[in-house]
Amino acid sequence: MSDKKNVLLIGAGGVGTIVAYGIDYVGKSNLSIVVRRDYVKVKDAGYDISSVDYGNIKGWKPANIYPNVDAAAASGEVYDFIVIATKNLPDIVKMEELVKPVVVPGKTTLVLMQNGFDLGRPFFVHYPKNVILSGVSHIGSHNSGGVICQTQKDKAVVSYFENPNLSKEQQETKAHEFISLYSNDKNDCVYFDDAKWYRYRKLVYNASLNTVCALTGVDTGRLAFSGGLDTVSIPAMREVVKIAEADGVKLPSDVINSVVHSDDGDWFEPSMRVDVKKGNPVELEVILGNLLKVAGELGVETPILTVVYNLLKVVQFRLKEEQGLITLPKERPITDRVFK
Amino acid sequence: MSDKKNVLLIGAGGVGTIVAYGIDYVGKSNLSIVVRRDYVKVKDAGYDISSVDYGNIKGWKPANIYPNVDAAAASGEVYDFIVIATKNLPDIVKMEELVKPVVVPGKTTLVLMQNGFDLGRPFFVHYPKNVILSGVSHIGSHNSGGVICQTQKDKAVVSYFENPNLSKEQQETKAHEFISLYSNDKNDCVYFDDAKWYRYRKLVYNASLNTVCALTGVDTGRLAFSGGLDTVSIPAMREVVKIAEADGVKLPSDVINSVVHSDDGDWFEPSMRVDVKKGNPVELEVILGNLLKVAGELGVETPILTVVYNLLKVVQFRLKEEQGLITLPKERPITDRVFK
Repeated sequence: MSDKKNVLLIGAGGVGTIVAYGIDYVGKSNLSIVVRRDYVKVKDAGYDISSVDYGNIKGWKPANIYPNVDAAAASGEVYDFIVIATKNLPDIVKMEELVKPVVVPGKTTLVLMQNGFDLGRPFFVHYPKNVILSGVSHIGSHNSGGVICQTQKDKAVVSYFENPNLSKEQQETKAHEFISLYSNDKNDCVYFDDAKWYRYRKLVYNASLNTVCALTGVDTGRLAFSGGLDTVSIPAMREVVKIAEADGVKLPSDVINSVVHSDDGDWFEPSMRVDVKKGNPVELEVILGNLLKVAGELGVETPILTVVYNLLKVVQFRLKEEQGLITLPKERPITDRVFK
Repeated sequence: MSDKKNVLLIGAGGVGTIVAYGIDYVGKSNLSIVVRRDYVKVKDAGYDISSVDYGNIKGWKPANIYPNVDAAAASGEVYDFIVIATKNLPDIVKMEELVKPVVVPGKTTLVLMQNGFDLGRPFFVHYPKNVILSGVSHIGSHNSGGVICQTQKDKAVVSYFENPNLSKEQQETKAHEFISLYSNDKNDCVYFDDAKWYRYRKLVYNASLNTVCALTGVDTGRLAFSGGLDTVSIPAMREVVKIAEADGVKLPSDVINSVVHSDDGDWFEPSMRVDVKKGNPVELEVILGNLLKVAGELGVETPILTVVYNLLKVVQFRLKEEQGLITLPKERPITDRVFK
């Protein structure tokens, strides 16, 4: 028996594969991955990776490659860490349910290396005694059919989603343990002690610029030129700041200014805008849905974010239908409902 | 000298050409038209019309055909009626300024056969002593390069935009006079004595369903299925009803129900949605812009309509840029503005 940790990474796409490779590079883990779409290619020939961090790699394979979570469970391995690096679409797939076969209650640490806000909540419901880590990745990396092209350094910020049933020490220890399995001389993986603050900070951009660009079909530069930055996105940012405040999180006083200026000089298309353009579902629920749930619980009014959310739900419906996830009858059914 | 009236119709596209043909069919007018895009074809070979009202017509031409308003003015004709049947895009073309060369102050009657709300206002500023008629067309008719295909009966409702400088009698008389030039045994052109009421009634649909479908990229059926009808459009309709009320217009108590059910059984794509799909600018200012101006003057809160309007302004900016009406620098300029 080695003292290596059993790590399972789910979602080895653009980001996930670089995380997986980083973990393998450190060498303290017995690494398994779940790769769905590119399974046949990867199982056979491995990944070809062109990476700003690791250089050019041909045919990389971790110890175990599975086509789905059930296969990873059937192997009989007991996983110490499960890293989830899939796109975060709870309105399509509930990851907390999908991973059930591979999670040992009270033992497995889950690492949510995903976009979004308040991601721990559904996991605490299913796994009240497990540590749920937060991983925010600032990487640029794309996957085309098992060929990974990483153009921006792998920078990750690891913290924990505060589980009220566990001690802070226990959760912090697990965060550091995960970092020790993943951090190496090529990447930049650090501990940050407040996941909630960090995720609120990210939301100031994502809830306001990412969403509005997705709805209107422009980049952040055109959003500014057309007036939408001032009329919709900045007022929306103020709503995020207010929710954070009500939630006990004090964002920097110049946060709105920094967020707007973060795209200075770039006609930048945020991720949700790119998704809509490609016809892919957007990470709406984990960005705006979860935020508005918290706002509602705290009694914070969100007149702008709510309209933006409700409009994007219609867009999401369209995207899902275009992807065959929703089917409508050929004839539009007639309702006898009375509308008021 | 005949006792025919001099009528100039501007914008002989799908709708305008059928109106023009109807006027010519009646035979009480000396009819001129301004046709911009298809001028060469129409001047040479006339219109080919396939009409549910008038049958198949080859090579129809009115008395005079002009490529632009200046040419219509240069002819020396004095026009009794000017019918404007262009798409209504005041953020691109200000019709009240464009028609200046052909309007005789205090004499010419203008007929705004166009979509939108409160259309008289800019004309009253320029022509305080002229009658400005309202024509709401309920026709289905399309133009492809001078070939007109009219699929739905020409039904028009004529009234007047209330000019406070003129007597009601004078304005009503002009409305009836115009109807006498246009109404015939094939079309269905009626007088309605309250343009404001009629245009508010139309806005209940246009400000809420037309706009939201345009923003989200769906038809009214999918809007209902996806939840957007309930979360955005119906609350937006309630705002329209409130503005109307504050403006002294009492809409029917079941107006929201009738409007929603008006598309029963159809996966119907409203005009603004079709425009966005085709990459054409939308009639945003005359539908939402003018309404929100009135709401502001009356002190009516419009939290939903305002967000929808501000988002659509971004879409309009994008559509204008795509059409070459706006050009942006290659490098995104950096501002030193402090955002708060």
